[in-house]
Order: sequence, then structure tokens, then C-alpha cells
Amino acid sequence: MELSLDPRLKEDSYMIGCFDCSILLLMKNSLFPWFVLVPFSNETEFHKLSQELQLKILNQINLVSRFIEDNNKIDKINIGAIGNVVSQLHVHIIGRSRDDICWPDVAWGVKEFKQYKPDQVKQIKENLLASFQDLLHVDE
Amino acid sequence: MELSLDPRLKEDSYMIGCFDCSILLLMKNSLFPWFVLVPFSNETEFHKLSQELQLKILNQINLVSRFIEDNNKIDKINIGAIGNVVSQLHVHIIGRSRDDICWPDVAWGVKEFKQYKPDQVKQIKENLLASFQDLLHVDE
Repeated sequence: MELSLDPRLKEDSYMIGCFDCSILLLMKNSLFPWFVLVPFSNETEFHKLSQELQLKILNQINLVSRFIEDNNKIDKINIGAIGNVVSQLHVHIIGRSRDDICWPDVAWGVKEFKQYKPDQVKQIKENLLASFQDLLHVDE
Repeated sequence: MELSLDPRLKEDSYMIGCFDCSILLLMKNSLFPWFVLVPFSNETEFHKLSQELQLKILNQINLVSRFIEDNNKIDKINIGAIGNVVSQLHVHIIGRSRDDICWPDVAWGVKEFKQYKPDQVKQIKENLLASFQDLLHVDE
């Protein structure tokens, strides 16, 4: 399906690429390794997705969680499907560390942010491509 | 397996019963319809659960989401696996309304709470049992 990304999600993130049936975004805040999966669906609630799509998203949550763990010094993965502000269904996967800016509180709603340098985003994208290979399709 | 509930989870919730491979809790805050699933596992990260257990928990998240939707006037379901404070793996499923105390912010970390009356908890338990029937086992 043709999926149009919510303007706020678009503004707050770098577009990384597409998995089978979802878009992978990196949030524009280098204070956390923070990714977002946007399923190809017009449903706004996770439990309303088809079982087939749920299983794909579940698998992609696992992949992104492992990627965060393998590429960052973290103590916990936080996963959330919230959508109170941006109604387009999206799943947050955030690496959290005891040393980060708001531990042990949740990262949602935190005002502090630090921009990525272009090289950092390039490096993360390369690492993602190396990890996910054919599973992740990137528009160059 | 024998699962010992984290003391803080125990203190903050009413024990409702057990699904196949998870405990269902109702948080002691009547400001939100707020349930927690605790998988039978010693892993602290969702992506480290076996696929079999993940699929069961996914199914139970769907069931609880639908229950919340069917039994409350809500605008959104919030799902989260966080665990920064209580490390025992647990999944929050919260019904949110535009009129609730902290909309559109997340409910995690909110200090406000309102106790349930014993009759309300009894009613919720009865509704859960009626909805889930043999899927939910309750110690009387």
C-alpha cells in the first residue's frame, strides 16, 4: 500500500527505509538510540492489525531491539505504542541507559534533545543496512 | 513455571488471574482502565522471550485491548513494555481518554491516583471472567 507519513513523525525523524510492511524511522534526538516502526496500515490501534501484519511487526520489533542492544551501551529496551498525539499507528523502540537524561522515567515527552551530526546518521544507516541486509530497503 | 511477582508490582495492583503463561494485573488507579501482563519468564527484555511465548503474549495483549475498548469510553489504547523501575518483564495496556487526567501525555509516572471501591474491582473481575471465560484462570 501507499503509506503517507504523518507530518509530525516526518519532521521529528530521519527516514531510514522500509521493512516488509513497515517504515523504519530514527528519531532526531541523539540522546537516545530511538527508532520508530510505522506499519503499512490505516488502523490506529495495534490490536486491529491483521494477525499477519502483527507478526511481521513483532519480528521487526525483535530485530530493531537486538540492533539497539548490539550497537549501544544500554541497560533496557523500552517499547511503546502510544499515539495520543500522532494518531498514525507507530511503535517506539528506545534504548535506555542508567546514565541517560531522564532515567528511570520514560523518554516520551522529554524536552531535551541533541541533534545528530550528519556523519552519525550516515554511520547508523550503514550499520542498519549491514545488520538487516535484504530485510531493509533503503531509498538512496 | 513458578513465577514470583515483583513486590512493587504486587503492591501497586490487584491480582486478577492467569492466562496461559502470564499473570493479569489491574493497576490500583481507577483514573485509567490500566492492566498489566506479566509473562512467565525470567527474561527482562521482550525480544528475548521465545517465539512461542511472544505469540501468546501478543494474543493476550489483543484480548485485553479489546476488553478495555468494549468496557470503557476510551479514545486510545497505550501499550508499553518499559521496566526501567521494575525489571520483571511486564506489559502495560492502558485505556486513554481525551478527558483523562494527563491526556495527551503518557500515564507512566503520573502521580495522581484514585482508589477503586471494592465493588468496582469485583465488577471488573466479573466482566473479565465473562469475556475471557476459560482463557483466564482466577484463584478464588
